[in-house]
Amino acid sequence: MPQRTPITSLGDEIVGRINELGAISETPEHLARIFLTPEHRAAADLILSWMREAGMAAHLDAIGNVCGRYEGERPGLPCLMLGSHYDTVRDAGKWDGPLGLITAISCVADLHRRGRRLPFAVEVAGFADEEGVRFASTLLGSRAVAGTFDESVLGSKDSAGISMRDALSKFGLDPDHIGAAARGRSELLGYVELHIEQGPVLEGLNLPVGVVTAISGATRLAVSLTGMAGHAGTVPMLLRRDALAGAAECIVEIEEFCRTDQNGLVGTVGYIHAMPGATNVIPGQVSFTIDIRAPTDARRKLAVADIVRRIENIARRRKLALQIDVTHENRTVPCAPWLRSQVAAAIAAEGYRVFELPSGAGHDGMAMIDITDVAMLFVRCRGGISHHPEEHVETSDADTGARVLLRLIENFRPRDAAQ
Amino acid sequence: MPQRTPITSLGDEIVGRINELGAISETPEHLARIFLTPEHRAAADLILSWMREAGMAAHLDAIGNVCGRYEGERPGLPCLMLGSHYDTVRDAGKWDGPLGLITAISCVADLHRRGRRLPFAVEVAGFADEEGVRFASTLLGSRAVAGTFDESVLGSKDSAGISMRDALSKFGLDPDHIGAAARGRSELLGYVELHIEQGPVLEGLNLPVGVVTAISGATRLAVSLTGMAGHAGTVPMLLRRDALAGAAECIVEIEEFCRTDQNGLVGTVGYIHAMPGATNVIPGQVSFTIDIRAPTDARRKLAVADIVRRIENIARRRKLALQIDVTHENRTVPCAPWLRSQVAAAIAAEGYRVFELPSGAGHDGMAMIDITDVAMLFVRCRGGISHHPEEHVETSDADTGARVLLRLIENFRPRDAAQ
Repeated sequence: MPQRTPITSLGDEIVGRINELGAISETPEHLARIFLTPEHRAAADLILSWMREAGMAAHLDAIGNVCGRYEGERPGLPCLMLGSHYDTVRDAGKWDGPLGLITAISCVADLHRRGRRLPFAVEVAGFADEEGVRFASTLLGSRAVAGTFDESVLGSKDSAGISMRDALSKFGLDPDHIGAAARGRSELLGYVELHIEQGPVLEGLNLPVGVVTAISGATRLAVSLTGMAGHAGTVPMLLRRDALAGAAECIVEIEEFCRTDQNGLVGTVGYIHAMPGATNVIPGQVSFTIDIRAPTDARRKLAVADIVRRIENIARRRKLALQIDVTHENRTVPCAPWLRSQVAAAIAAEGYRVFELPSGAGHDGMAMIDITDVAMLFVRCRGGISHHPEEHVETSDADTGARVLLRLIENFRPRDAAQ
Repeated sequence: MPQRTPITSLGDEIVGRINELGAISETPEHLARIFLTPEHRAAADLILSWMREAGMAAHLDAIGNVCGRYEGERPGLPCLMLGSHYDTVRDAGKWDGPLGLITAISCVADLHRRGRRLPFAVEVAGFADEEGVRFASTLLGSRAVAGTFDESVLGSKDSAGISMRDALSKFGLDPDHIGAAARGRSELLGYVELHIEQGPVLEGLNLPVGVVTAISGATRLAVSLTGMAGHAGTVPMLLRRDALAGAAECIVEIEEFCRTDQNGLVGTVGYIHAMPGATNVIPGQVSFTIDIRAPTDARRKLAVADIVRRIENIARRRKLALQIDVTHENRTVPCAPWLRSQVAAAIAAEGYRVFELPSGAGHDGMAMIDITDVAMLFVRCRGGISHHPEEHVETSDADTGARVLLRLIENFRPRDAAQ
């Protein structure tokens, strides 16, 4: 067996590449790497070169994902797929997505340096569009791999009026052959994604990594309350039907309802608009959004029904007209217990306490579940900050994540063998 | 004494003129009659013609107010001044301002038709800019008359970048001689303004008119709460510092605080902005405004202090950074008891119950108080709606308002004689 490179070097390599990839951006002022842009191309070329350097056969697939394959003990074996995405939101941090992708490549490179072949192949997928910034449709890359890409989104247009179909063609991809990116169920043994937590839980517990139990399902509601606009000076308090005061009562109630839940329920009002919106006018209409997530679908559905009932009561008491629409609904994606336990074992073997937590954020696993079992490994990020330039991971935590992932790969047993 | 025209005709005349004046607008789609525009000129010409037809000497003054004078039993007597404004907000109703001005002209016309001369002159002032739409500075017309026009506002610019100084010149007025519009204290016996209520109180009491006790002072606050933005899915409820949930608690508290007051205190949050304002992001910063009014300055100041203290407590408990700025402050303008009682007597003589209420809205009396005693007569408006195309006054109520005002004029006794 060749001599093992000191494993602590993985963290340095990963952080170096995070910075290198983070420099590929629409503008130097803030990080934005958007689907089917020149930055997408430049990032893909860089990642493909890293994959090849790590001993992988690598190519760009039909939707623009980067795909690397490190053969096992013999060619053509089913693979353990690792990955994450390499697109970003606007004014993004460097870690959300790239950390999982770059760590996976570094792990394979480590196997390659040691000439280590496993009784299965290892593939690394870099998904081209998880955030959905350009076409307001998320998980485009992983859905293509899972064979669930919805062809109707090809007609959607970006803010400049360019359709996804035209953007693909201009990028050099054939919009009529996205199906070629799809993988068969028998080709995959499982999908494991390392990702920054994007929340403050691990930091609060002083743990570098955590095992994800499930990707929480989410329901988004759009709420509109209509009362009666009026002059701020002339309408006595008891004669008002103030839509903003009603909305405020709803927001306080949603927060209180979710705070008393002990099982990971979260509810957020992120957007609010009061009309007409003048200092001296009682708001006649207010719209706001609610985002509700829970680690099980049953809990989430109960919570949504309960919150809707509370809003209805507030609206009735205040004589406000109410409209509530469900604008988005995602089922919960549970991580496979057999795969989760291997992630947990790798953490324990690295000497850390195993802590399990739900992922409140969505990830490519939500698409991958349609063709294979899914697990996730979270890495602590500073202050829980994400989707922000201050997003940060300590090099030592990046290194720990890599060590856990490498141990997981090397000790991986497929489902049948594991049970 | 000439035969008296049936007084019920005043309401019809007034409503006809309301409609005629209401047709003079920036666009036909909505009513907007803005200071120093061609519509200002057209409206002034029309009103001056009505004044002259009513037997008044009439002219445009140095700031663009229309001024009519109906001499008393001999020329040069001090005057009882009546009036209101003839500019509008954008997308305005036809009644706010014009009703008081047109009613005053109709009353004088009635005196003139009967050849009735009084032991004092009657003047009618149509103020050119009460709303302050164009230059974001209110009461320009009445401040010029009161001699308190602030010359520094001549430099302020409208949204097209035109300074008030240039706009005055272009209109044919001399910005360096606005002082010529100022009246002396000895010229005036008092100022009485008839105006729509702009609130729902009289309608709720089934009364066509009411006596104003005071123009409520107002304090406006700008509040900013800063917490920590975060992912709506990944930050547990107990680790959040949600600026919008904090703002919502403040809004509920402000409403509750004002509702329990029995003395006409009103508090309104009319504007709110949550940042970043995305469905799936916990708001890190929220700004909102508070408008607080009360019929006495002492009550208002106490209420402001109390509300600020409550907001401070909420911010402290939620670990939100707080900034509160006073952006606007208007003292309360009490209506003169001696003049108020004459308004009340006129209402009673017309057979209506005398009901007293504060004016929560600002009016030109706030400027006129600097040179003379002020009183106001409110006329019921439908649904309390104002600053809106649906603003409406029944013809019978316009008529009642005119009858009360005419009776007030004919029975008017100056302060010294009245006490």
